[in-house]
Amino acid sequence: MILNNQKNNSEIKNLNTNLGKCSENVRKYVPLVHCITNYVTVNDVANILLACGASPIMSDEPKDVVDIAALSDALYINIGTLNERSIKAMFEAGKKAKEFGKLVLLDPVGAGATMLRTETAKRIIDKLQPNIIRGNASEIKALALGFGDTKGVDADVNDAIDDENLDESIKLIKEFSQKTNAVIVVTGKTDLVTDGEKCYVIYNGHKEMSKVTGTGCMLSAIITAYAAANKDNIVEAAAEAVCSMGIAGETAYSMQKDTDGNIAMRGRIIDCIYNSSKTVFEKGADYEIR
Amino acid sequence: MILNNQKNNSEIKNLNTNLGKCSENVRKYVPLVHCITNYVTVNDVANILLACGASPIMSDEPKDVVDIAALSDALYINIGTLNERSIKAMFEAGKKAKEFGKLVLLDPVGAGATMLRTETAKRIIDKLQPNIIRGNASEIKALALGFGDTKGVDADVNDAIDDENLDESIKLIKEFSQKTNAVIVVTGKTDLVTDGEKCYVIYNGHKEMSKVTGTGCMLSAIITAYAAANKDNIVEAAAEAVCSMGIAGETAYSMQKDTDGNIAMRGRIIDCIYNSSKTVFEKGADYEIR
Amino acid sequence: MILNNQKNNSEIKNLNTNLGKCSENVRKYVPLVHCITNYVTVNDVANILLACGASPIMSDEPKDVVDIAALSDALYINIGTLNERSIKAMFEAGKKAKEFGKLVLLDPVGAGATMLRTETAKRIIDKLQPNIIRGNASEIKALALGFGDTKGVDADVNDAIDDENLDESIKLIKEFSQKTNAVIVVTGKTDLVTDGEKCYVIYNGHKEMSKVTGTGCMLSAIITAYAAANKDNIVEAAAEAVCSMGIAGETAYSMQKDTDGNIAMRGRIIDCIYNSSKTVFEKGADYEIR
Repeated sequence: MILNNQKNNSEIKNLNTNLGKCSENVRKYVPLVHCITNYVTVNDVANILLACGASPIMSDEPKDVVDIAALSDALYINIGTLNERSIKAMFEAGKKAKEFGKLVLLDPVGAGATMLRTETAKRIIDKLQPNIIRGNASEIKALALGFGDTKGVDADVNDAIDDENLDESIKLIKEFSQKTNAVIVVTGKTDLVTDGEKCYVIYNGHKEMSKVTGTGCMLSAIITAYAAANKDNIVEAAAEAVCSMGIAGETAYSMQKDTDGNIAMRGRIIDCIYNSSKTVFEKGADYEIR
Repeated sequence: MILNNQKNNSEIKNLNTNLGKCSENVRKYVPLVHCITNYVTVNDVANILLACGASPIMSDEPKDVVDIAALSDALYINIGTLNERSIKAMFEAGKKAKEFGKLVLLDPVGAGATMLRTETAKRIIDKLQPNIIRGNASEIKALALGFGDTKGVDADVNDAIDDENLDESIKLIKEFSQKTNAVIVVTGKTDLVTDGEKCYVIYNGHKEMSKVTGTGCMLSAIITAYAAANKDNIVEAAAEAVCSMGIAGETAYSMQKDTDGNIAMRGRIIDCIYNSSKTVFEKGADYEIR
Repeated sequence: MILNNQKNNSEIKNLNTNLGKCSENVRKYVPLVHCITNYVTVNDVANILLACGASPIMSDEPKDVVDIAALSDALYINIGTLNERSIKAMFEAGKKAKEFGKLVLLDPVGAGATMLRTETAKRIIDKLQPNIIRGNASEIKALALGFGDTKGVDADVNDAIDDENLDESIKLIKEFSQKTNAVIVVTGKTDLVTDGEKCYVIYNGHKEMSKVTGTGCMLSAIITAYAAANKDNIVEAAAEAVCSMGIAGETAYSMQKDTDGNIAMRGRIIDCIYNSSKTVFEKGADYEIR
C-alpha cells in the first residue's frame, strides 16, 4: 500500500505516482469534449469543462453526432435523461469515436434503478467498450454484479464504500475493470479509481456535494477532459480529476457563509476547478494506492 | 376569517392551523420526486428540491418513466416545454403513480395560451386526477372557466388577484377544487391555496420574483415534496410551501446589493429555501384562512 | 469613418447615431420572445431576457409553436442542439412569425462544423429570410462563403477578425447582408453589425466571456428583444445590444475576485444587463461606423 495522504505523509507524495501533472495538459491541449448528457445538469457540465480548460460541444441528434464525434477529441455519454433518440445518438457517436480511436467515457446514471437504464448501460459497455466508466457504488454494483440498490440517481446507503467493505469493493471493481477493459471510477464518501491492476483510494470531497445536483455528471465530464489530454495515463488522469473535484468541494464548503446554500456551493465548486492548479492539487490531494 | 398575519396578529398564530410543521417532514423522509418538467428551469427545480430536503429524479422517456414512477414517492408534471414524447411519458408515469397511490401535482404552464397546452392540461386533470394543481391566475382561469388571458407563460394583469376580486377568486377556485377533487394553488401577488373547503390567502412573496425564470416551477416542485412528506395534510403542506417560497423571495430581495440582478436573486431564493426552518417560517409567514 | 470610441472622442458621441435609446424601449414594451434554442444555455437565455426587460417563452414542439409564434413579438431560432423535432418546429414557427410580420433572428450555432447544422442554417435563411443572423466568424464565413473552420461551437482562430482583415471582413458581411437581406452580426474580439450599408465596428467585450458557455446565445436573445422593441431601427438595436453585452462582460470581469471563476462571471454578466441603462451605455460604448 502506497500512502499519499499528504496530511500525514507529505514527503512521499509524488514519489510513486505522477498525479498532479494531468490538469496542465488539459489547459495546454484544450480537448473538445462531445457530450451526450442529461438536460438537468448540462449547463454546469459545459461550464466546468470550460473551467478546467477544455471545450464542450453538445449534440444528441443521430444525424448530427457522427460529424461531431469526428471533430471532437473525446465522447462523454451520460444516460441521466436518456430517450430513444439520444440512445440512438449515443451508439452512432460512440461507434464513430471508437473507429477514430477517440476516448469514450460512460456515466451510467440510474443503472440498477430502471430496466431501460440498466440495459442501455450494459449495451454501451458491450458494444462501445468505453475507456472509462464512472458511477456511484449502486450503479457500478448493478453493472458489475447484476444487482444493486440504486435509489433513483443517488447511491443507496447500503452500497456505500466504507472501511468495512473497502477491500472487497476494490476487489470487485478491479475484476469489473479487467472484464470490461475499462478504467472504473466509483465515487461516494471514498472514491476508487482502478485500471484493474492498481487502485487509487481517494479521500477528498465533502458530503455537502451531494446537496448539489450534478456533481457526479460534472466529475465525469472533467475526467473525460483529463483523460483526453493524457491518453497515455488514463488511470492517473481519472484519479487526478477525482481528487481535484474533491478538493474543489472541500474548498467550496470552507467558503460557505451562514446564509449560503447549495446554489452558492455549486458556483464555488466550478469556480474552484477554474482556479485549480498543480499547487492546489499538491496541497490538497489525499489518496493512497492499493 | 382567521387572521394569521403575524405582523399584526402574532399571538393567534398556529392556534388554528398546523402550518410550520410540514417542512421538517421533508428533511426527515427525503421524498424522491419524479419530475417530468421543462428543460428551461429543470436545474433550478432539481437544486431547490435538494435545498428543501427532498431528492429529485428526472425522466421523460415513456419506456423509462414507469419504473421511475414505481420507485418515486411523488410525480411532478410541468408542461412548460411539453412535446409528443414527454406528453406520452406524463400519462404513462401518471397512471402508474396513481395506481400505486402516489401523489401527483400538475403545473399547467401556458394553459390558455396554446391549444396543445390547454388540451393537455385538461386531459391530465381528467385522466390522472392530480392531487394538486398549481398555476398562475390566467392558467387556472383558463382551466376552470374555459378561458383566460394567458400571455405566454406569465399571468395577464387582467387576471391578477387583488382586493377587488378576492372573494370572487376564492369562490372560483373552491368550486374548481371541488370539481377536480384537487388542492388548487393559484400564485401571484396574493396566493390562494384551497381544498374546496378552506382557503389559505397568502401575502408572502416579492414582485422581484417574477424577474427570475422558474420561480413558479420551483414552487410547484417543493409543493410536491412537502405534500409527499405530509400526505395526510396536503392542503397545509401546499400552503406552507407557498409561504416558505414567498419568505425566501422576500429575504432574497432584502439581501440584494446595488450591482445585483436577477441571477443573484435566483441563487438567494434557493439558498434561502436551503436555510429555511420552522423558526424562519414562524417569523415570516403572513396569511389568513377564509 | 465615424469614430465613437468615447474613451477618445466623447464629444462626438451620439451625434451620428441613435445608439443608446433602444434598451429603454425593451423595458417599455416588454417584447415576448419565443425561443427555440438549445437546452445547454436555455436558462441563461430566459434570465437574460428578463434582465433586459423582455419576456421569454420556450417551445419546440411543432404542434405548439404555431400558437406560440402567433402570440409572441419575435422568434429567436438557435440551432445549438437541433434535432429532427426542433428543426420542424423552427420552420413551422418561422413561417407563422413571418406571415404575421414578426421579427426572426437566426443563431447558426456550429454551422460549418457539421453537415446538418450547415444545411439547416442555409435552409432557414433561404425559406424564412430571418431579419437578423448572428454568429461567430467561422459560422458566418461558412454560410457566406460556403466554407470556414468552425471548431465545434467556437470560432477557429484562423477566422478571427483583426486589424489585418477588418476591411475584408466588413466587405464580406456587407455583401452577405445584401444577399440575405438580413442584418448580420459577427462577434468575436471585434464585433461587426451591418445592414449592408453601414457597419458598426464594436470594441466592447472581454476575452474572459469565452470561458462562460452561452454568451453568444444570450447575446442573440437580447438582440432579438432589442430589435423587436425597435423595429424601425433594427441595425441600431442590434449594435446597441452588442455594445451592452460587451460592457456587461467588461464590468463583470472588473468585479471578479481572486477566488472567482467562470460561474461568478456568468452571474455578473446577466446581472450587469439587469442593471444596464442609458447612462451605463453612454459611459462604456466603444464603437465606430464604417
